[in-house]
Amino acid sequence: MTLNKVIVLLSGGLDSATTAAIVKDEGCHVIALSFNYDQRHGIELEAAKKVARHLNLDKHMILNIDLSQIGGSALTAAIDVPKQRSAEQIKEGIPVTYVPARNTIFLSYALAVAEVEKVADIYIGANSLDYSGYPDCRPEFIEAFEKLANLATKTAIEGSKIQIKAPLINLTKAEIIKRGNALGLDYSLTFSCYDPDKEGLACGQCDSCILRKKGFAEAGLTDPTQYASMVIE
Amino acid sequence: MTLNKVIVLLSGGLDSATTAAIVKDEGCHVIALSFNYDQRHGIELEAAKKVARHLNLDKHMILNIDLSQIGGSALTAAIDVPKQRSAEQIKEGIPVTYVPARNTIFLSYALAVAEVEKVADIYIGANSLDYSGYPDCRPEFIEAFEKLANLATKTAIEGSKIQIKAPLINLTKAEIIKRGNALGLDYSLTFSCYDPDKEGLACGQCDSCILRKKGFAEAGLTDPTQYASMVIE
Repeated sequence: MTLNKVIVLLSGGLDSATTAAIVKDEGCHVIALSFNYDQRHGIELEAAKKVARHLNLDKHMILNIDLSQIGGSALTAAIDVPKQRSAEQIKEGIPVTYVPARNTIFLSYALAVAEVEKVADIYIGANSLDYSGYPDCRPEFIEAFEKLANLATKTAIEGSKIQIKAPLINLTKAEIIKRGNALGLDYSLTFSCYDPDKEGLACGQCDSCILRKKGFAEAGLTDPTQYASMVIE
Repeated sequence: MTLNKVIVLLSGGLDSATTAAIVKDEGCHVIALSFNYDQRHGIELEAAKKVARHLNLDKHMILNIDLSQIGGSALTAAIDVPKQRSAEQIKEGIPVTYVPARNTIFLSYALAVAEVEKVADIYIGANSLDYSGYPDCRPEFIEAFEKLANLATKTAIEGSKIQIKAPLINLTKAEIIKRGNALGLDYSLTFSCYDPDKEGLACGQCDSCILRKKGFAEAGLTDPTQYASMVIE
């Protein structure tokens, strides 16, 4: 294993960017991993690229994967993204923005890269508090994946323990933002919206925008995002 | 959940074809799932298509995934496939034909399809006896993935238990072939070779060809494969 060499799943959103900032600050050699999965918008990937440059990450891999053929989510098929729900409503049940088995797929790819790159630590920005009710963002999911990883791989069989680390799992969105802010992370580079307009502006009304705005408000910091709804006003 | 509707991972090889034959014989509605992962040869996928038609499977999905960017295996990168090893040598260690985290990735996609198709049973032709020493073909891997699946998904949270079934896991290659033969499976449609020649003929010398030939011999059946080495003679 290469000491201090880690993999970070980087979506271009607020959580994964903060996770990357944390491990980079700890002096790790960071391989960022992003996925081009025919999202409705490529803005997220552009954000991931900007964040990777901003944080001076050591390597940024973008893998092309095909989730649109599977569909089943507002993010991968023609299903409307819910709008203007309260933080309480967002936590009820599993929303249509849930992408079936997405984090399982992402972590599986990370595991493959970990095998090839001789890395034992995989970081994911999963967060179980201020988040939509996605089953694959819960601590028990992360633990189960780690157990799997240690049976599935050559790395594990050859004696290195693979660790799936989710440093934000029990933080509120406000705590995450404060942490990144203290590390100098430029949140204007990150992008959270599920349903941006044609100009690429965040809608300000989807679950992800609402949680982001609430997080910045609770952190007492200014959200640098330019929202489409602000432009309309 | 849709009763009797199952997903089968179908590579076009002997094991997955037998698995599909078994579940089809049990009266299941079978969704076969294959992957185009920039293998060196597309022959495997053609075999999967033929097997799906032969067994009259209900649906055959082929997902494009990109493993060549990750590499790390003789099947996805420019690494030589080992030849003429004995069955004992094949069992020693993890060979270079191991594709990092491949079964984890395949099962993750199957999980996504299961969510969308409302399926709770996923079949994989993994076999831990007459097989190369792949970590992700062992019973403990299958069990760990099933545990993960039941934490990762909407299906599980909504109350259905996802099962990862590997009916061949403890069978010898000979037993697998006898089973498929009894079910009328035409093994001439399946393809096992890791390193076919330009005409698409199986090499007869890689681990997979050796295990296949040994399996047919021990089953007392004729291997219908036309091997390149037979042509040379």
